[in-house]
Amino acid sequence: MNGSEIKATQKKYSLQSWSAQKGSDPIPVAKAEGIYFWDYDGNRYTDMSSQLVNLNLGFANPVINQAIKDQVDQYCFLSPSLGSEPRAALAEKIINLMPDNMGKVFFTNAGADANENAVKIARMFSGKFKVFSRYRSYHGSSFGAGNLTGEPRRYALEPGAPGFIKFFDPYMYRESIDFESETQATAYYLAKLREQILYEGPNNIAAIVMETITGSNGVIIPPEGYLPGVRALCDEFGILMICDEVMTGWGRTGKMFAFEHFKVKPDIVTFAKGVTCGYVPLGGVAVSQEIADYFDENVLSCGLTYSGHPLGCAAGLATVNYYRDAGILDHVSQIGLSLGEILESLKTKHPCVGDVRYIGLFAAIELVKDKATREPLVPYGKDPQGIMKQIVGMLKDKKFMTYSHENVLIVAPALIIDDEQLSEEMLKMDEILHQVDVLI
Amino acid sequence: MNGSEIKATQKKYSLQSWSAQKGSDPIPVAKAEGIYFWDYDGNRYTDMSSQLVNLNLGFANPVINQAIKDQVDQYCFLSPSLGSEPRAALAEKIINLMPDNMGKVFFTNAGADANENAVKIARMFSGKFKVFSRYRSYHGSSFGAGNLTGEPRRYALEPGAPGFIKFFDPYMYRESIDFESETQATAYYLAKLREQILYEGPNNIAAIVMETITGSNGVIIPPEGYLPGVRALCDEFGILMICDEVMTGWGRTGKMFAFEHFKVKPDIVTFAKGVTCGYVPLGGVAVSQEIADYFDENVLSCGLTYSGHPLGCAAGLATVNYYRDAGILDHVSQIGLSLGEILESLKTKHPCVGDVRYIGLFAAIELVKDKATREPLVPYGKDPQGIMKQIVGMLKDKKFMTYSHENVLIVAPALIIDDEQLSEEMLKMDEILHQVDVLI
Ligand SMILES: Cc1ncc(COP(=O)(O)O)c(C=O)c1O
Ligand SMILES: Cc1ncc(COP(=O)(O)O)c(C=O)c1O
Repeated sequence: MNGSEIKATQKKYSLQSWSAQKGSDPIPVAKAEGIYFWDYDGNRYTDMSSQLVNLNLGFANPVINQAIKDQVDQYCFLSPSLGSEPRAALAEKIINLMPDNMGKVFFTNAGADANENAVKIARMFSGKFKVFSRYRSYHGSSFGAGNLTGEPRRYALEPGAPGFIKFFDPYMYRESIDFESETQATAYYLAKLREQILYEGPNNIAAIVMETITGSNGVIIPPEGYLPGVRALCDEFGILMICDEVMTGWGRTGKMFAFEHFKVKPDIVTFAKGVTCGYVPLGGVAVSQEIADYFDENVLSCGLTYSGHPLGCAAGLATVNYYRDAGILDHVSQIGLSLGEILESLKTKHPCVGDVRYIGLFAAIELVKDKATREPLVPYGKDPQGIMKQIVGMLKDKKFMTYSHENVLIVAPALIIDDEQLSEEMLKMDEILHQVDVLI
Repeated sequence: MNGSEIKATQKKYSLQSWSAQKGSDPIPVAKAEGIYFWDYDGNRYTDMSSQLVNLNLGFANPVINQAIKDQVDQYCFLSPSLGSEPRAALAEKIINLMPDNMGKVFFTNAGADANENAVKIARMFSGKFKVFSRYRSYHGSSFGAGNLTGEPRRYALEPGAPGFIKFFDPYMYRESIDFESETQATAYYLAKLREQILYEGPNNIAAIVMETITGSNGVIIPPEGYLPGVRALCDEFGILMICDEVMTGWGRTGKMFAFEHFKVKPDIVTFAKGVTCGYVPLGGVAVSQEIADYFDENVLSCGLTYSGHPLGCAAGLATVNYYRDAGILDHVSQIGLSLGEILESLKTKHPCVGDVRYIGLFAAIELVKDKATREPLVPYGKDPQGIMKQIVGMLKDKKFMTYSHENVLIVAPALIIDDEQLSEEMLKMDEILHQVDVLI
């Protein structure tokens, strides 16, 4: 098929996520390498969101590709009850990368089912029922993960299962209180969370589930002391702390896992995306040794046909090794500083930029109508004139590919981007923001 | 790693599905081809369940393997919003294999999330809320699919989301009524279902979800006229008919989809397993043109990072083509007759065999203590002495690998098995059943 046939056929026969189909416009991709992909007319696009913040090592990584081919030559699939070297090796590798309290991995297909299984495991282990998660969060689109999710993509799953309780995340930029310091904000948010725990009944709460750093909902980085404070609340009340590292894991923030920035040890960690960079679908749940031991004698009531998929695990092993072998974490920490500087200068320069948030190569630009009042460029949950879509389209015209969420633009290129590429692309962003300045 | 290291490492670091970990005993697999796999000591095992009834074309199919490698050379992953040839081509292929009312495919990672999304789509399209499914059913282990599931693996997800209603499946062998004919049974089951629809309120019911032929719960084949009768009820009350073809699809029963045996056209079909034989994780939901059209203007509130995965779709395209090109359906219909004859003779011969059920290469042997009373070999939901596990172990000692559910043994070899292989393996079954005869 040529490009336009691919596009027409895909539109005719395949449904597109999160959209009315009429407006969907899938660019047919002919080839892809590193941070770039090309359509069938030879146009080159720069992937400035690592696809869905999962393609951490970019397209066509030769080491991952070779690992997949080699595994194809052994076998692609085994039932989860059998044993394979890539599964054993990847599980060992992951546990060794995690804090010393962690014990075992249950492999899933993706991020949503990692969170589904984390909730099931927390309930089975604790014998408790309620699960806390946050309003500004996305944990996946299946019923369990969707009930954890706090943002509107949850509505399609309501009324949901009982026991899923929402609390507010620490979003200082949009809080009505004007905090004097991060420490003060932290004290406020933790006091509020503690109060809610007491009102819900600590003895009923199995777990608190958080994106370590809120991702899709705008790269919201917790203030100083917040996560250790949540950890302390969990310890005080015997609640499990579950970190969703689906988006933040695997080097995105300059550490292997984002919780390392905050010096906390979760009881359960969910992951997906960067573990294989999406080359083969894979996700998983890492649990503490204490939880793992519980299931020595008790039945783990979790299972899926593709759990521990050999091809997925082989891709995962190559990917995870690559982060270390190629010094990706150091590179991200370094180049993340450049990205931070660029973003700060955009904020200074552009009236439309209310806030910029960044850590490693994980960043967001929050657009406002008015810097002083912080009025968002588009009101929450509404964009009747499609302004954000228009801005993403203007970037796309410059072949800067990313996506938006509410009034926020995501900047999260592949972790292999170099300084020159980053400057070149962020110049495009600068130009578009000038146009947005005129709009507001 | 050698075999024992793989086993030890996997046990130490990776959780095993549906089991207490202490008893898990993952055979480390060194190589695999066709219907056989080998451990690291050179022992050969015959896979008589197509792993989890998903490896329809057996291990190491060269055409699927090559398609995966070729796709690796183009790219492994794209965001679901972009266009790829394997996705477009596979979606078109699948719709062309389905009844003429079908319109589009939404791709997922597996079977559970196919069912999750089918329910979401049915609710969005219909604006109705309740979903019917059956007691003897397994639809997956995530919260939505698990709430559809009727058997005990659902308990870990309870209390579940509201709106999931269970009805009884047509299981003639274990019904307290002694039906004179399939037609009489059908009339009874349909009257009961109609009554339940009326009591739940037809205007509240979005969909009826059924495994076309109940799989994990014992290969329960609907009696003559049952599925057309359900279709008629759906038409009468404006309810969507959703067939879960995750296990029964892709040639397993001698047709591409099991609903073809019963001459019904579902509104939604979910699939996974055989679509790639598990070589790369993939699942999906096919919806009618009418439903597809609804989402031209209305937002499809479904999405997952790996939706429309290029590597998965490339594997799927090769697999689906292979079923046709290699004449698999005819072969299954043919050899299914031999399997049926063998099973009937086992039933005649063995006091422990209460019932045998089979269609194509999809079969179950139901074990009883007493043929006349039909008392099951182990009571429902209990097997304190582990008798079924013991029987599966005895088969395993003969290198006949399958699994059991309650008092039922599953026989579902890869669709490429030949007559000689089938006879050889079923002889082992015969020998083990002799030992079971003594047990009862
Ligand atoms: C933090 C987080 N959790 C879970 C998910 C769901 O992952 P998946 O799309 O693989 O189901 C996502 C996807 O964007 C995510 O960002
Ligand atoms: C009929 C049916 N539906 C759904 C599923 C769930 O599929 P998966 O394990 O890929 O989530 C299964 C798995 O055995 C199944 O047999």
